[in-house]
This record gives sequence, C-alpha cells and structure tokens, in this order.
Amino acid sequence: MAEGAKRLARLRLRLGAAGLDALLVAHRANILYLVNFHGSTGVLVVTHRGAVLFTDGRYATQARAEVRRARIVVTQGSLLEAAAAWLREAGTRRIGFEAARITADGYAELRRALGSSRLLAVRNLVEEMRAVKDAEEIAALGRAARLASRVFAEVLPLVRPGVRELDLAAEIEYRMKRAGAAGAAFETIVASGRRSALPHARASRKRLARNELVVFDLGAILSDYCSDMTRTVFLGRPSARVRRLSACVQEAQQRGFEAVRAGVAAQRVDAVVRSVLRAHRVDSYFTHSTGHGVGLEIHEEPRLARSVNTRLVAGHVVTLEPGVYIPGWGGIRIEDLVVVRRGGAERLTPTPHDLITL
Amino acid sequence: MAEGAKRLARLRLRLGAAGLDALLVAHRANILYLVNFHGSTGVLVVTHRGAVLFTDGRYATQARAEVRRARIVVTQGSLLEAAAAWLREAGTRRIGFEAARITADGYAELRRALGSSRLLAVRNLVEEMRAVKDAEEIAALGRAARLASRVFAEVLPLVRPGVRELDLAAEIEYRMKRAGAAGAAFETIVASGRRSALPHARASRKRLARNELVVFDLGAILSDYCSDMTRTVFLGRPSARVRRLSACVQEAQQRGFEAVRAGVAAQRVDAVVRSVLRAHRVDSYFTHSTGHGVGLEIHEEPRLARSVNTRLVAGHVVTLEPGVYIPGWGGIRIEDLVVVRRGGAERLTPTPHDLITL
Repeated sequence: MAEGAKRLARLRLRLGAAGLDALLVAHRANILYLVNFHGSTGVLVVTHRGAVLFTDGRYATQARAEVRRARIVVTQGSLLEAAAAWLREAGTRRIGFEAARITADGYAELRRALGSSRLLAVRNLVEEMRAVKDAEEIAALGRAARLASRVFAEVLPLVRPGVRELDLAAEIEYRMKRAGAAGAAFETIVASGRRSALPHARASRKRLARNELVVFDLGAILSDYCSDMTRTVFLGRPSARVRRLSACVQEAQQRGFEAVRAGVAAQRVDAVVRSVLRAHRVDSYFTHSTGHGVGLEIHEEPRLARSVNTRLVAGHVVTLEPGVYIPGWGGIRIEDLVVVRRGGAERLTPTPHDLITL
Repeated sequence: MAEGAKRLARLRLRLGAAGLDALLVAHRANILYLVNFHGSTGVLVVTHRGAVLFTDGRYATQARAEVRRARIVVTQGSLLEAAAAWLREAGTRRIGFEAARITADGYAELRRALGSSRLLAVRNLVEEMRAVKDAEEIAALGRAARLASRVFAEVLPLVRPGVRELDLAAEIEYRMKRAGAAGAAFETIVASGRRSALPHARASRKRLARNELVVFDLGAILSDYCSDMTRTVFLGRPSARVRRLSACVQEAQQRGFEAVRAGVAAQRVDAVVRSVLRAHRVDSYFTHSTGHGVGLEIHEEPRLARSVNTRLVAGHVVTLEPGVYIPGWGGIRIEDLVVVRRGGAERLTPTPHDLITL
C-alpha cells in the first residue's frame, strides 16, 4: 500500500476514534501530507469511504497531475461551500473541522451550510500524524539538513569583516536554490555583534566587524521537507568570555541530545538543557524554548518547551537549539535537527559544534 | 501630524461610522500599517482614546524600538486573552474583530472572554484604508518596481538555452536582495516552453530550449512595499503566431491602462482588457483576472475582476496583467504596476512591453 493510502487509512482510524464521519481539512500542509496536492487553494474532505479535493480552475491541471488518492472537484465559487454541499449530500452527520486553521468567516460559512450541531472542532488531528515521520520522510529531512550544512560550509570563506549581513543571507539562499532546494525554509538569519543577542533578528544592512559574534540560522526546503540549523562564528580571537559561553551552549546542546529518546517527555529535554545553563549561571539568558518539530512545515509538533508534557515518540524530528543572548553584548546559539529513536537520538545536521573562528 | 497618527485618526472615524468602540486587529500587515510593528506575533487594540499592542517577550525590544503610536504590553500567555481582558476593563461595549483574519479558535476564545453580544465581525476595514496609498507609499512602490525592473534587465543576458528555470529564479532573487530588497515579494516564476501556459507555474528544473517562450513574473519587497511585474521572452526568431499573440497581449495591456482612472469601476478595466482579447478571438485563453492591488501585501484590495464593481480611487495601486495561455503550446503575459490618478493612470514599471527576443 502506497504511503498516501496508508496515511488516509490511519486518519480514518483517528476519525473513528473521535466519533467523526468526516474531516474537512483546510490546512495546506495537511492536504499536502494526505494527498500530495501542492497548490495553495484547496479543501480536502475525508470520509470513511473516500476523499475529495475541492480546488479552483487555476489548479485543475496540477491537481490532476499530483493527486492520486482523492477525487478532484474543480469549482468556481467558495470551496468551503462546495465541500459543505457535498458533505450534506453524502449524509455525513458528525464533521470535524480544523478550528485552529479555518477563519471565523470560514467557520460561519460552514455553520450556515451544515448547522453547528454537525460541526466538531478538532485540533492537531493530522498534525499529530505528521509529527511522526516514516523512513522516507526522515531521509528527505536528512537530505535537506545536509544541503544546508553544505551551503553553510561553502559560504564560510565569504564571512569576513566589511560584508553585510544581508549579502551573506542572499548568498546562502541563492546557493541553497542552486543546490536544488525549492527555497529557504524561513528567512535566513545572519545577526552580528550586538544583533546576535536578538534571537529573531533578520539579516540587516549591518556590516560584520572584527571581534564580533555572528549567528547563522538557516534551513532549506528539499522534496517538500524543511531543515533548520544554527551555528555561531567569531571573527577574530575569541575572548575567555566568548569561549566560556560557547562551551556552555555546546554542553547544553549535547546534554539535551543525550536526553532525547522515545518515551521521554518533551519538557524533560527542555529542563536538561536549562539545567546545564543554570549550572553555569547563564540560564536567564536563554529566552526561548529548546526546540520544535520540523517537517513539511518549519514549526510543527512536538514543541520542546517547559510546559509540554507530550512524550517523544520514535520518528519525531525536532530541533535542539539552546542559546545565550546577552543584551548589548551578543549571543551564541547551536541548533541541530534530531530524530527521536527508541533508545536515543540521531543527529541529521552534520556540521560540527565548535565555535567557528575566522 | 505624522503618518501613523493620521492613520489611527482615520481608522477612528471609520470605527465611529461603524458604531464601534474598539477594533481588535490581528492581521499582521494591518498592524504594520497602523503602528509600524514588524514582528510576526502581535494583536493591536484601537479604541477612540488610544491604541495598545500586545506581543510576547521575543518581540519586546523590537516593539519598543519600532512602535510610537501605541502602548506596548508584553504578555506570556495568549495575546487574544490579554487583549480581551484589557477591553473588558476599558469598558468597551461594541468591539470589532477581523472575521476573515482570525481563526475559529481565536474567535471562540474572544467570545468566551467578552461574550458574543460585544463582538462584531468586520471585514476589510483597515484593508480599504491600505488600498489608497499616500505619496510616500507610492514612492516606495515605485522604488520596489524599479528595483525589479533593473534586476530583470541584469538577468536577461543569462537567459539562454540550456539554463534551468530555477537557476534563473535564484539569480533574480539573489540580485534583488543584493540590490537592497528584503526579499522576493512572492516565489519568482520562470516558466518556459509548454510550462509558460501555466499561469501559476513555479520555476522548475526544466532547462530553457531554443524557440521557446519564457514567462518571468517577479517582484521585490523594498521598505516593506511589494512590486509585481511580468515580461515574456522568446528564445529565437518568433513565429507569426508568437508575434501576433504578443501584439494582442500588448494591446490589451495598453487599452486596460488607458481605461484606468479614478471613478471607473474595477470590472470595467477587466472588461476592456477582455474585449481586446475577444476581438482577436483569444479571450478564452485568458483564464485569470486582470489585476489586483499591491502594497504591504502582494495581493490586496482592489481586485480588477469581472464581478468587482468597486470604483477606482486616486491612490489605488494595481497590477494590469493580461495573458494568453494555450495549453500544450505556451503562454504570454505582460504585467505592470500602475497608480490610479484622477484623470488617468501612471505606470510604475519602467520595462518596455515588446516581446523580448534573445
């Protein structure tokens, strides 16, 4: 049985368990996962007997070429209305909809067409399936991770004082595409000097200078799957403080990695990372969570954060990205993509962890 | 009075007219427009007396640096909940929310916090303000359009048989960034041969070949504003059919341009474009609408389409993009960015319209 059919079969088991006759899927990555449709406009209905993809004329040719496991209905008006009409005719009674993915207007439209008694809010039903990757998906994530690592290595010789952050970001994204990526998985971060202390800094016109930290956070999309990695560079001879902080972050990342295995709670990995930073009295400078799932989307389930008691499962693919950010001074982050396995974890990012000095 | 303050003042007039005490703004481009916040996570509340931006710790520093016309509240939990609590305490009774921008879950959260009697769905309230650009915005759009035109001209010497579509797209996006763009306004389209007949083709691994049409659709983001242009290239000596179809599309674009001025209905411009194509018996090959607004977003109000009776207003900035797409053969499209003026229109895209033969 091909992967698409397996996924629909597994989704039907979940529908059954939730007492649903049908699921209306509006989220693009979920539709891509279930029936391989890459267009931007589509609504998928999955029942226990079949699946129907509603799209518009612009995507008719593409849908017919890509989609094997669903009937395709091309419609001129509202896709939700067409899906609702179909669900009514099919006699479905309990219809799940993705409450975190559909707009309030979309929900109102469904309610008018179907009545609120038939509509049941679901959350993360397909996302939880997507979180657990099969061998083929892990292979694709590995390829995307290696592509980003390769491009990072290629660009390092260009990293020197006087170069603008945004020129390095442009260079990285250009080379990812030349290497076969569909594009960057997110806006590439190149943050130097004080800006390295901003975890979400975009690349700016700032020029790199001697004796600065430079944080590179990059990822590629290859065969639909994203990658995500961060490495930190120092331009010059690092001070004792830079070396010490870099060693802390490396240790935190390594200990976090060693804590990952099937059965461990996500918050446990986050706690291990924080405890290492706390032992070095720098935990207050780690202002975000430890990691997130990566797959068809750059941020997906599961999250590795303080309040998340989800147990890790073999096949989860997550980032591990501790950092320290000292306002007005600078920041250091190390991030790998990691597969959860039964007895431990496996890194997909091949780039070494040492502070890179140029 | 600075632009931000004017925009909030104008929004308050609109709130008054709609009988609203407050508006809860969730759409990122609307927040950017009103208070200059560039972060990805924020909820803005505008009342008749003030404005408050709710964001999380990751964006605290950025919000304080960027936002002048709103108080900033940094919160750890749900932004919508924080905003709702603030609205309750402020004693607001009639609260507008963006029904096409908020999720069904977000709406349910607001309803629990505020009661449905206080919540009124609004649509396009800020979007309609954004559709009418001031002189500074038009200048920014013009710069973004010129940047894309310049990059297109730079890349033309690389357009030759044997080159892959996606390498040309990567080259275009790289050069846009090197020229100062924050990025591409959308995924650059390079579609050659039969693929040029797909209006939404992405750049693929396909290599250009002699005697093919190649459609380039590209845009840059510069100073937050997008541009959008399309030109078609022929690699070789064009046949009579190619020349004839190219002349049709040029004529349709020109006639559409001449139909644009303040007071004309959007659908009228679409009808003029279609009538030119019909006179040449190729209107059935024009399978999308004539244009769309462009600004902080690549697709915004107003739309130039068959069923849209919105009157154009001085300061609207729209694309004009007729095309013919002949399945299995190829396509031609010409697209400019155009400002609506009182007595006519003004092109922001400087690239000439003639079929480019290489």
